Amino acid sequence: MPAHTDAGRFFEDFQPGETLVHAVPRTVTEGDASLYLALYGVRSAVTSSTPFAQSLGLQRAPIDPMLVFHLVFGKTVADISLNAIANLGYAECRWGAPVYPGDTLTTTSEVLGVKENRDAQTGVVYVRSTGMNQFGDKVLQYARWVMVRKRNPKSPAPRPVVPTLADHVPVSGLVVPWRGDRTGYDDALAGSTHRWDDYRQGDRIDHVDGMTIEEADHMLATRLYQNTAKVHFNAMAERAGRFGRRIVYGGHVISLARHLSFNGLANALGPVAIHGGRHVAPCFAGDTVHAWSEVLEATPLPGRDDLGVLRLRTVATRDRTCGDFPFKGDDGAYDPSVVLDLDYSVAMVRR
Amino acid sequence: MPAHTDAGRFFEDFQPGETLVHAVPRTVTEGDASLYLALYGVRSAVTSSTPFAQSLGLQRAPIDPMLVFHLVFGKTVADISLNAIANLGYAECRWGAPVYPGDTLTTTSEVLGVKENRDAQTGVVYVRSTGMNQFGDKVLQYARWVMVRKRNPKSPAPRPVVPTLADHVPVSGLVVPWRGDRTGYDDALAGSTHRWDDYRQGDRIDHVDGMTIEEADHMLATRLYQNTAKVHFNAMAERAGRFGRRIVYGGHVISLARHLSFNGLANALGPVAIHGGRHVAPCFAGDTVHAWSEVLEATPLPGRDDLGVLRLRTVATRDRTCGDFPFKGDDGAYDPSVVLDLDYSVAMVRR
Amino acid sequence: MPAHTDAGRFFEDFQPGETLVHAVPRTVTEGDASLYLALYGVRSAVTSSTPFAQSLGLQRAPIDPMLVFHLVFGKTVADISLNAIANLGYAECRWGAPVYPGDTLTTTSEVLGVKENRDAQTGVVYVRSTGMNQFGDKVLQYARWVMVRKRNPKSPAPRPVVPTLADHVPVSGLVVPWRGDRTGYDDALAGSTHRWDDYRQGDRIDHVDGMTIEEADHMLATRLYQNTAKVHFNAMAERAGRFGRRIVYGGHVISLARHLSFNGLANALGPVAIHGGRHVAPCFAGDTVHAWSEVLEATPLPGRDDLGVLRLRTVATRDRTCGDFPFKGDDGAYDPSVVLDLDYSVAMVRR
Repeated sequence: MPAHTDAGRFFEDFQPGETLVHAVPRTVTEGDASLYLALYGVRSAVTSSTPFAQSLGLQRAPIDPMLVFHLVFGKTVADISLNAIANLGYAECRWGAPVYPGDTLTTTSEVLGVKENRDAQTGVVYVRSTGMNQFGDKVLQYARWVMVRKRNPKSPAPRPVVPTLADHVPVSGLVVPWRGDRTGYDDALAGSTHRWDDYRQGDRIDHVDGMTIEEADHMLATRLYQNTAKVHFNAMAERAGRFGRRIVYGGHVISLARHLSFNGLANALGPVAIHGGRHVAPCFAGDTVHAWSEVLEATPLPGRDDLGVLRLRTVATRDRTCGDFPFKGDDGAYDPSVVLDLDYSVAMVRR
Repeated sequence: MPAHTDAGRFFEDFQPGETLVHAVPRTVTEGDASLYLALYGVRSAVTSSTPFAQSLGLQRAPIDPMLVFHLVFGKTVADISLNAIANLGYAECRWGAPVYPGDTLTTTSEVLGVKENRDAQTGVVYVRSTGMNQFGDKVLQYARWVMVRKRNPKSPAPRPVVPTLADHVPVSGLVVPWRGDRTGYDDALAGSTHRWDDYRQGDRIDHVDGMTIEEADHMLATRLYQNTAKVHFNAMAERAGRFGRRIVYGGHVISLARHLSFNGLANALGPVAIHGGRHVAPCFAGDTVHAWSEVLEATPLPGRDDLGVLRLRTVATRDRTCGDFPFKGDDGAYDPSVVLDLDYSVAMVRR
Repeated sequence: MPAHTDAGRFFEDFQPGETLVHAVPRTVTEGDASLYLALYGVRSAVTSSTPFAQSLGLQRAPIDPMLVFHLVFGKTVADISLNAIANLGYAECRWGAPVYPGDTLTTTSEVLGVKENRDAQTGVVYVRSTGMNQFGDKVLQYARWVMVRKRNPKSPAPRPVVPTLADHVPVSGLVVPWRGDRTGYDDALAGSTHRWDDYRQGDRIDHVDGMTIEEADHMLATRLYQNTAKVHFNAMAERAGRFGRRIVYGGHVISLARHLSFNGLANALGPVAIHGGRHVAPCFAGDTVHAWSEVLEATPLPGRDDLGVLRLRTVATRDRTCGDFPFKGDDGAYDPSVVLDLDYSVAMVRR
């Protein structure tokens, strides 16, 4: 009967090599930027101020890269993860051209691989999604793999195709659109005197502040991203679900952690890449999120003396402060408070 | 004492033939559009994307027609329904010129009629409200009748004047601003391959998805519309009121139903007319809204082969899925879950 | 260990005469304006409509002066009040050049004075903060004094410096950017026929309407202002705090009271000055705010016959209507419902 509705794609529907064109194109506006800022309390000078952005060589204050991520990702949900059971991982995520208000974003995904699980009920689908602006410039690209339900357990298993994905994005592969002005850069306006040179591999930074999630906040955010995953919006259905309540979109937690990290990483430009990440546990309304970061690597940018790159692990928790850097126990299991373990890179102005 | 405040108009204050100029003029912006999108998860390609809108002959992504409705309607509340007991009906509602960011909207209302009720405490007021842009072009017009309190039960009853209102807006009376490009129209970007030709009278569509209402959401929406009806905002007063809690603005439920209907009606442009509608029951925070639609009529657009019109009944429920199309029982009474029964038309590109 | 994070300044860190440059510069947009409107239900015609604003001599609809206040103030929190125990007072607050979408605001503060308290644990810091646009024009200036913790109780007390602050901003010191058109001014569009001439010293106005605060609302507002005071956002920490729950930013209550006052003061332009103010008690989510105002003084504007100034006391309450103007008892103590007592001035068109 629901012949006109979209039930989403099942495992059988994904063919390695095919390209999916996702709905809906989106002209990003200053309104989207304001709402994003207000949802997370973004304080990044480069996305808050056009003169500051111009001092770094941009046309004007760009759309926050994490908002670009959510918009590009949101378009893929209806085609890729509506029948997904789990989001298994990310790799090779890189930002490209900066996005400005007035740009229009579209997303396509290439199916990289499929592999049926032993249970014959589900399989893993690998895709590479690419967000583009109206000029056809890449603004974001990432690989992602998800566990998807089969429409029919009796469907024959496809030939397994498992792509090889890099365990990190090399510095040489980064698009770094800012031109740092080492002498003119205004630390006071940016909010910190700590530049790239002040961070060392192994440094651990407690971002101190905490933010409590409200149902209205995470739903407003997720709708802004035109992300249609049902579990975020429907309290009635979720009362009968796995957790008894609505689940917060994992990307909302990434943005919370990213913007809490201003306190300790105020001069971070970007992010420029996500190497990998794990939503260790779900978040719910009422949870208070804290975060801490470890500097995994501090790398100069080849051929440039204005900016360096910091590879970071940012860990977010629910209902636990991060002064003692909660992570994994001796048994390798995550501390029960940990909700996010993200491995990514930012750029930062050098001295 | 409250000599400077506005107590609203009572039944005695409405004179058939008079025109009311409503406060407050409003310059609609991209900020309003973003917030509207985020409140409902709007996925309509034509309002999300300027290039997509231009491919349909518009200047740029227009303001969502339902946002135009709420803004035009919101202005009338202080003058017409502040002392209303019930919103009795709508008729002859048609959209006109598309509204773009930067346009300024004003609303005037003509009093079409008045009729005192037998109880001598209240009466019915009929008005026709017209929203205009800064060029004086009509952007929306609709008739509405409301039950309004008398200031003084002893006031003499006015001569009854009851207007004749059409039971539907004929297709010939519709303003259809889009030019459909049947070959160039991109179904993938729009989110569905179902065009006007794929819908038949009698088709029923379960829109599947549900959305839970939060207090913060419906108040943010209703304030965005500058709608000042007290029952939506004041928990303290409403604890002593009819339902013991704040009532969600009925227009918020219309927008929820309209945008949930993307799943099944993704290619709908518009709406272009509301023929009639009934807020069957109030909604409250915590309710989860689902919706289904029936195609009442599929009509070609006279003289044009690019677009057709679908007349739809969209029914919204609270806390009940719509797979079995809940509507009315054998006794003609609505199913207790039904909150909205809306009769309206959309345009859609033909094959 | 948290060497890269910002612990905020303590009492010892403030030197009279020094100037602090606050992060983060902010390009204000139409998106910010929309969100502000939706948070408070702003109905002021001059900030809602570009043609209306132009009829008063402005370039276009300006950013609401209270939003300018919050943005300028928000920048000071990280440097001045992160370790503050109490916000003690405001004085000499004046708005300057109107702010338009696209303008970029920065804030600096001059330390006017310091005075250690007897307990040797805390001291009072006096600052004058100035918000400027990208042209270096002042958009807002105000003095403020806060009680700040000492880093070390054993630090020697500094030489006390206590500035002399005016008990009100004289009319001659006001910046009044509007040009009133007494004959062309449209009372109907503005929402009231009451002009400056209709208000007399001693008039008391119940603003009638009430607005209930949600956690999502006040946090969205306070993040929009990039105000980082921890007590507004962290339910987990505040459960162990003084009130057991998140405290609403006092400026949010000022904006609620200001915009509730539309009903009774619809033609108010501004505000143009805050003479003084007291957050009498904190507000929390769930509270319903009402407000009333008293006209303290009605003053013509020197050399101009188009506009006059009203000096107002606006009192806001929680969970209590204001028909009987709750204020202070015979003992001089505030009624327990009072949360705000604000002494400020607005401009208004004359007949």
